[in-house]
Amino acid sequence: MIKLERGDLVKIAVLQLAVSKDKQVNNLNAKNKIIQASLSGVDLVVLPEMFNTTYNPYKFEEFSEPEGGPTYKMLRELAKERNIYIVGGSIPESFEGKLYNTSYVFNRSGECIAKYRKNHLFDIDIQGGQKFKESATLSAGNEIAVFETEFGKIGVMICFDVRFAEFAKRYTLEDCVMVVVPANFNMTTGPLHWELLFRTRAIDNQMFYVGCASSRNPMASYVNYGNSIITDPMGKIVKRMNEHSGVMIQDINLDLVKKVRNQIPVVNNSKFKKSA
Amino acid sequence: MIKLERGDLVKIAVLQLAVSKDKQVNNLNAKNKIIQASLSGVDLVVLPEMFNTTYNPYKFEEFSEPEGGPTYKMLRELAKERNIYIVGGSIPESFEGKLYNTSYVFNRSGECIAKYRKNHLFDIDIQGGQKFKESATLSAGNEIAVFETEFGKIGVMICFDVRFAEFAKRYTLEDCVMVVVPANFNMTTGPLHWELLFRTRAIDNQMFYVGCASSRNPMASYVNYGNSIITDPMGKIVKRMNEHSGVMIQDINLDLVKKVRNQIPVVNNSKFKKSA
Repeated sequence: MIKLERGDLVKIAVLQLAVSKDKQVNNLNAKNKIIQASLSGVDLVVLPEMFNTTYNPYKFEEFSEPEGGPTYKMLRELAKERNIYIVGGSIPESFEGKLYNTSYVFNRSGECIAKYRKNHLFDIDIQGGQKFKESATLSAGNEIAVFETEFGKIGVMICFDVRFAEFAKRYTLEDCVMVVVPANFNMTTGPLHWELLFRTRAIDNQMFYVGCASSRNPMASYVNYGNSIITDPMGKIVKRMNEHSGVMIQDINLDLVKKVRNQIPVVNNSKFKKSA
Repeated sequence: MIKLERGDLVKIAVLQLAVSKDKQVNNLNAKNKIIQASLSGVDLVVLPEMFNTTYNPYKFEEFSEPEGGPTYKMLRELAKERNIYIVGGSIPESFEGKLYNTSYVFNRSGECIAKYRKNHLFDIDIQGGQKFKESATLSAGNEIAVFETEFGKIGVMICFDVRFAEFAKRYTLEDCVMVVVPANFNMTTGPLHWELLFRTRAIDNQMFYVGCASSRNPMASYVNYGNSIITDPMGKIVKRMNEHSGVMIQDINLDLVKKVRNQIPVVNNSKFKKSA
């Protein structure tokens, strides 16, 4: 059963950050934007996938850190100092000689309450369009990540994961009311599928979905689509950005999750079980 | 592995039929439209959900037949006579004192090669919108249905089933290249979700989806949305009807299934297993 302990309203900030080749600059930018968002009284801040690194499989090692590294520490301190939840987008994590695309989540006390390693690596080769092969340098995680808040349970997945309907269902079985997705679609897959996937995952699972992307840099080797988005349990777009960097702040009324699940019994009548 | 034995091109006819309160009239209308479609050289004809009955849970018994009843026989004979596959939409089936929302599929020899009973009954209660309770009089099936053709495997589900992403995945695990969905969305859920669901099920599973609805009758107790639709493995709309009755004929190149699965490895890299 879904519990909403602190009423139903959560204020979130989606940071659509511009990412440069300089990690220190990227982290400082993230820090400034987190502080800026916190001044608006937000409860939860979300950062983009690979928000402090060039999005290139062969650069991930250079930008990587083990758990507890400088980026982790920065986010942990900001969460505590600003008394907010931070879903730290993702960064390349080094662990026992391997690299992962990893998201750390911190609570208002600065504790790391979830760690998510991207499960489905981004290996695409679209005729006349985008090519990319994350698995050339990254290893895949094998667990979902869900964290508890006073608003209910929130899940984290990363980018390409959102294409896997059966994977998304696992968060529903864990009673999430929202899934947050640091992501970077591109100029091929973005116009084709970004909005469609976030709208449908929301109605498939009758919860809120939040996609947080980096802003678009047409000069980069990988051109991000941007368009950070929030969708609701009826599949409607609550708010959506364009390609430019910025901070999107939105109040979300989680009561809609229960309402929609009662009106159209998809989640309630699903035959899909936890063992799956 | 997907086998395409007779080349990749299949010509299908989607019959968006007008449904009256008279079963004989409805069956005669279906027969005429099937013959009309067959004259265009189609391989496969699809009929709508509950194509010969008033769409009212309390009328299903009156319109019901056991397997092998007059409607079944009519479709069987037409399939053989016209040398086509027929996905016979659905009709109320009576079986051992229960009623099911059942689709029969016949091959070119008139053999019944699949039988599908709707798994997810349509029980909705949308505030200020559509209410409906199929489970008041119908029982639910528990099996998927897949049939083999010279074009590859084709699955059948019915209407509300299409909302269940994990259910749709089961057809993918059976190596379907297309799923055919006799369906009747309404004036609340149609504008909200019809197109979105058919586009996403197609990209989730990287195959073709075909939705075949009855035409809209604004005077009926349940007003159909119509808008029969064909979507492709990239989530694009191949063709779509409006609310009026008619026959939609379309060549479908199934080669796109393999192409898209190689370009964006969602089906190929899914961790979802048959046992689920």
